[in-house]
Amino acid sequence: MSMWSTFDRQMMTRALQLARKGRYTTRPNPNVGCVLTLGQKVIGEGFHKKAGEPHAEVHALEQAKSNIHSNTDPNESARGATAYVTLEPCSHFGRTPPCALALIHAKVSRVVVAVQDPNPNVAGKGIALLREAGIHVDVGLYQNEAIAVNDGFMKRMETGMPYVSVKVAASIDGKTALSNGISKWITAAASRRDVQRLRLRHCAIVTGINTVIEDDCSLNVRHNELGELSESLAETAILQPLRVVLDSNCQISLSAKLFLTKTPILLVSTQPYSAEFINSKPSHVECLLLPSLNGRVDLKSLFKHLGKDCNSVLIEAGATLAGAVIEQALADELWLYQAPILLGSQGRSCLTLPDYLQMSQTPEITLLDERKIGEDRCFRFKLTSKKL
Amino acid sequence: MSMWSTFDRQMMTRALQLARKGRYTTRPNPNVGCVLTLGQKVIGEGFHKKAGEPHAEVHALEQAKSNIHSNTDPNESARGATAYVTLEPCSHFGRTPPCALALIHAKVSRVVVAVQDPNPNVAGKGIALLREAGIHVDVGLYQNEAIAVNDGFMKRMETGMPYVSVKVAASIDGKTALSNGISKWITAAASRRDVQRLRLRHCAIVTGINTVIEDDCSLNVRHNELGELSESLAETAILQPLRVVLDSNCQISLSAKLFLTKTPILLVSTQPYSAEFINSKPSHVECLLLPSLNGRVDLKSLFKHLGKDCNSVLIEAGATLAGAVIEQALADELWLYQAPILLGSQGRSCLTLPDYLQMSQTPEITLLDERKIGEDRCFRFKLTSKKL
Repeated sequence: MSMWSTFDRQMMTRALQLARKGRYTTRPNPNVGCVLTLGQKVIGEGFHKKAGEPHAEVHALEQAKSNIHSNTDPNESARGATAYVTLEPCSHFGRTPPCALALIHAKVSRVVVAVQDPNPNVAGKGIALLREAGIHVDVGLYQNEAIAVNDGFMKRMETGMPYVSVKVAASIDGKTALSNGISKWITAAASRRDVQRLRLRHCAIVTGINTVIEDDCSLNVRHNELGELSESLAETAILQPLRVVLDSNCQISLSAKLFLTKTPILLVSTQPYSAEFINSKPSHVECLLLPSLNGRVDLKSLFKHLGKDCNSVLIEAGATLAGAVIEQALADELWLYQAPILLGSQGRSCLTLPDYLQMSQTPEITLLDERKIGEDRCFRFKLTSKKL
Repeated sequence: MSMWSTFDRQMMTRALQLARKGRYTTRPNPNVGCVLTLGQKVIGEGFHKKAGEPHAEVHALEQAKSNIHSNTDPNESARGATAYVTLEPCSHFGRTPPCALALIHAKVSRVVVAVQDPNPNVAGKGIALLREAGIHVDVGLYQNEAIAVNDGFMKRMETGMPYVSVKVAASIDGKTALSNGISKWITAAASRRDVQRLRLRHCAIVTGINTVIEDDCSLNVRHNELGELSESLAETAILQPLRVVLDSNCQISLSAKLFLTKTPILLVSTQPYSAEFINSKPSHVECLLLPSLNGRVDLKSLFKHLGKDCNSVLIEAGATLAGAVIEQALADELWLYQAPILLGSQGRSCLTLPDYLQMSQTPEITLLDERKIGEDRCFRFKLTSKKL
């Protein structure tokens, strides 16, 4: 690997910024950003916005074409340019033609790639194509940052499992509700808007039947609760995450509020639903039978199933399910929305976890990020997969 | 009240900074800072460092004297000057002569006072003395900040009760130990050093007999654990807080580690200690009998007693005592040292609080301050005295 110039770093930083612009809309595709430069000048920029639409490189090349002087051949607009891309350019014909070919046809002379695409359809073939065409390719600039931008996509491509985040709202004494279940509201409205945006970054939201029964929640993304994001994202552009309810014993009622919103719902049980239920359920609802573990849906099987289509899964559930995901070392992150209140020692715990006998048995967590949201705090922790 | 000039604000801000320099050493005296100016020039500064030693105004006047040109009469050094003081200059002969007189003798022409001294020996008399001498006095600049600098002194002078802070170390799920009591260490060494400095700001540390039995703690301030403060504060200058153990049923053993440190200890019980215990206890240990409430030392009686000498009390105790102080609306502040760990739902709660039935019954807390200490967080909350 070569040493990177300051200019290289600046351009890849910009490309990563661009990539992040797609974080609410590209799934299940990865977020990708691209910057095209000629000499020390940016001639085009782009990011991938939505599955099925052009990739970042194509947007950047289009911009370069429209930016050139009228006396230049549009097909020569990127000749000799350097392309900074946050993910290896694709090499396969999907819904769009391969970006590696687009860069070759545009006659760029150098491509800087942050990280190789783990998608088995690409996996180095894009880089190989470019090099065969005589283009100089450098790989690895801001690799960790580029992986973080696509944590879900990366994990799913490499392991078949989605990236799993557990969301918890709690008081400073670690409670999520009073003993009688009252929890409206622990966190302030601004935090709840933040959770709406968090949902939108995930391919699926998983909850348990008890949460559905107790809260009669909709679990959808509501445009009018997206805060500042609602201005830049049209309501019709909202990609609703798949709503998954773990309903081991087929307890759900079709009168639950959840069903009123007509976006996909997956009901997961460990015994078959009745024929009557199957016949009367709305068409946007699917049922899935999975093995049980201690009388509940086996979480590993669940994530394996979701990993077929979902990069990222958000657990928004009660303490039992949220705790189980952490206890079984299946969680990648914990998002803790902490409110400056005391709910008291009789309140409900935010996470049901085992009776640890030694400090070394407790889950290993590392703070990734911390934000103030009004009076609340949002802490984002990485969980390392220490087996309990 | 006049409008304050920018210069006035700058000078009082500086005087408050100076006052805070005494926060580890002046008790039970208040922290006071003074800045003397002539025109737009600072000619002297000072702060009160230690009870029995000169007050802030005297230090500032001394500095003004030593700063003057050799051809000026030293007694004229502050003629026409303005004195900015964070607390009303005293008017009574205590261990030192009254500062109001010192300012009058120095022929200052204006005194700006942040807040009147609630001490019944002063209480406006200092201001009156100055005005009678023809000095222009303005009162109220940064009054709230000046009260905060002396929260303990102010509360005690006004109510006879000390300012009570509860310190808690907890995991992000609100636990202070595993179920088996293991708690070493929740917070990191840097946080524990911070607690040493916190102790030093208090006149007394209160704990319960169970904490003494379980942790065999010393509850003293250790010079080698004061971190950066140990450089500016000599070990001999450490004013050890009174150590108070609530020992309702006279369970304490004279072999407890606590007794090895020869600074004052107060044992509080609700029944008399045995004559044998009284005869064999070390001389730095006193015993106090107080009324009981539900079989434990009545906390209101305790604080009333401590309020005779102590401005501020720090509760460093188990969840029962710490929770009771909050539950009985006797706490002014909560200091939460929060570590990025999960101790699990079976762990010990950090505060024993009642089973609240409505959100409105929970204690009302407001964030005053938040600091990062390594990976830990220190949150300082103000508790308002909503009766539960």
